Amino acid sequence: MYKSRLDALRRLQLANDIHSVALMPGANMHYFTGRTTHLSERPAVTFVPAEGPLAVLLPELEAPAAKSILPEDARLFTYRDEEGHEYVFHQVAEALGLEGKSIGVEYLAMRVLEMRRIEQAFPGCPLLAVEPWMPELRMVKDATEVAHMRRAVEIAERAMQCLLDDGAIRAGRTELQVAADLQVAMLREGGQGQAFSPIVVGGPNTAAPHASPSGRPLAEGDLVIVDWGTVYEGYRSDITRTFVLGESTSEMVRIHDAVLAANQAGQLAARPGLAAQEVDRIARRVITLAGYGEYFIHRTGHGLGLETHEPPYIVEGNLSLLQPGMSFTVEPGIYLPGVGGVRIEDDVVITADGSETLTTMSRDLVSL
Amino acid sequence: MYKSRLDALRRLQLANDIHSVALMPGANMHYFTGRTTHLSERPAVTFVPAEGPLAVLLPELEAPAAKSILPEDARLFTYRDEEGHEYVFHQVAEALGLEGKSIGVEYLAMRVLEMRRIEQAFPGCPLLAVEPWMPELRMVKDATEVAHMRRAVEIAERAMQCLLDDGAIRAGRTELQVAADLQVAMLREGGQGQAFSPIVVGGPNTAAPHASPSGRPLAEGDLVIVDWGTVYEGYRSDITRTFVLGESTSEMVRIHDAVLAANQAGQLAARPGLAAQEVDRIARRVITLAGYGEYFIHRTGHGLGLETHEPPYIVEGNLSLLQPGMSFTVEPGIYLPGVGGVRIEDDVVITADGSETLTTMSRDLVSL
Repeated sequence: MYKSRLDALRRLQLANDIHSVALMPGANMHYFTGRTTHLSERPAVTFVPAEGPLAVLLPELEAPAAKSILPEDARLFTYRDEEGHEYVFHQVAEALGLEGKSIGVEYLAMRVLEMRRIEQAFPGCPLLAVEPWMPELRMVKDATEVAHMRRAVEIAERAMQCLLDDGAIRAGRTELQVAADLQVAMLREGGQGQAFSPIVVGGPNTAAPHASPSGRPLAEGDLVIVDWGTVYEGYRSDITRTFVLGESTSEMVRIHDAVLAANQAGQLAARPGLAAQEVDRIARRVITLAGYGEYFIHRTGHGLGLETHEPPYIVEGNLSLLQPGMSFTVEPGIYLPGVGGVRIEDDVVITADGSETLTTMSRDLVSL
Repeated sequence: MYKSRLDALRRLQLANDIHSVALMPGANMHYFTGRTTHLSERPAVTFVPAEGPLAVLLPELEAPAAKSILPEDARLFTYRDEEGHEYVFHQVAEALGLEGKSIGVEYLAMRVLEMRRIEQAFPGCPLLAVEPWMPELRMVKDATEVAHMRRAVEIAERAMQCLLDDGAIRAGRTELQVAADLQVAMLREGGQGQAFSPIVVGGPNTAAPHASPSGRPLAEGDLVIVDWGTVYEGYRSDITRTFVLGESTSEMVRIHDAVLAANQAGQLAARPGLAAQEVDRIARRVITLAGYGEYFIHRTGHGLGLETHEPPYIVEGNLSLLQPGMSFTVEPGIYLPGVGGVRIEDDVVITADGSETLTTMSRDLVSL
């Protein structure tokens, strides 16, 4: 599997005139090599030349785990803590022999630290962003990847059902307590990590789309936005539902209706051949015509896979055409200062002739 | 509190001839401004000029949360998803008016993305690493910070005690199952997030210091290394203990004795005025004289605070003198290929005349 992914990467490198791609710890390294190490203060860069074996720069203490995963012909360049890492970049440069050829780097993952080291060790080699062409390879998910994403959704939804069955989302409990319950429940249901810190916000805090859970106790009459997800075999889920504690006001119902209609319109529109921005446009148009356009202050969604946010972004200006296997969120929201917010987020995969929603929970404004 | 921290930062900026420091989401932004946002594909950079108000570049949807935390005179430069972020860097550049003066950047946190934008918007301004001088400000913890770290240790230790009471670490259970139990237990005990993915490895997997938990079931006779920690108010704990399932062999006891002696020697040596490398040297010397020097293949420890790994690093070549309030791990290990490994890690704070160990659990080779 990793061999065919590396082959595809190398074909695109040749097409883009990139001698070697420098992969940082993260989703691309995972996708192309199977290694799932984390970013740390110890630099670790995997160089993928268009031809020839991988050149893998890493701390010596990670070498055993790396060897068990990497192709047999991969060349490892290791350093010990007390030696520092400067000289291994030069060793890699010598081994690869780039001489002025271009290196592809992840602008969204590589740090200034690694960039400076590469500039020093590979003088005269332009460092070009891979983001314009590399995401194409990861955007279309195969059946196994979609199955992992479906499982990540199931685990997240089962966890939420546990909280609902337990009455865990209720007046008097703090946002942080509910968020902690949700994390526990996702791990108990088989989640293999955090896709992100779950957002649980109530009342006035729902008016900011990116608020963090606080020590504020939930109160009767609150809107409550819960945005949560988990990881399965590296693949993420990312769901949002909005609840109300007790009776909803007519205004809450109105904004919830508008958000739900926008969510459904976006999902129904999504199909192969449509530009990504059209999903944003239709969802936004529904909310604008309902009179709340100025309160929908973020894009309609983002790609989902090995990263919680990845291409394709569902945003005005993204002309990329949707293709079968692409996966992303549809998550319109309305945030009324002084009143509160509603967001409804589903995970969607493009199919041969439309789209499939992985999320199955009710989207109603459930009263708890 | 944040005002006095920013004042201290600005004094050092002036001393280092840095007009503005560019802070990325992460520990420094948290420490100096109180904001705890996460790195994402949406750039967010807080510019701290040596004189004058903060210039905060961020996505519009994060503005409400930011305003509630930042000083009143902070100037916010926001962008919406559909606009892209390029022009706001130019707005910030105009507002700050640097004209060729130096900008301090976090080489370990800033990405090529933000660096390129800053290079474009601030032409002629040298981008200099803050790592040579900025860590000084965060290395010495005050009483409140030490109290948070102590609490993070207590939570982690109570969680481990739950697993031991439940007999959760036993033959037949997989490394991943035990790791998930530990995550759940830490959240239940009041942990506010993951300091890192806990390491639970048994048998042959203990011979690699950075192995990840696998689906391998633990087996009778295994050494089991558990490396875990949690977060409290942003501050981390990071503990390692080694267990044996059933009877230990004489070789296991021998390497455990050597690691324990090295751990204790390092902690006893740690005191104000000692160079950080001396703690590494004494721990390493104990292991070397016991005959296992070549199997201790990492540094003796790392600083601990808002980051799980931060200065001071306890490593050969680090001549920084320990000062009261500095906090770090002491974690020697021996990793014998084909046999297994032992690591014992404690969290330590330098006091006025020595050091204090925050970790309280038994360091014995407990048989489970």
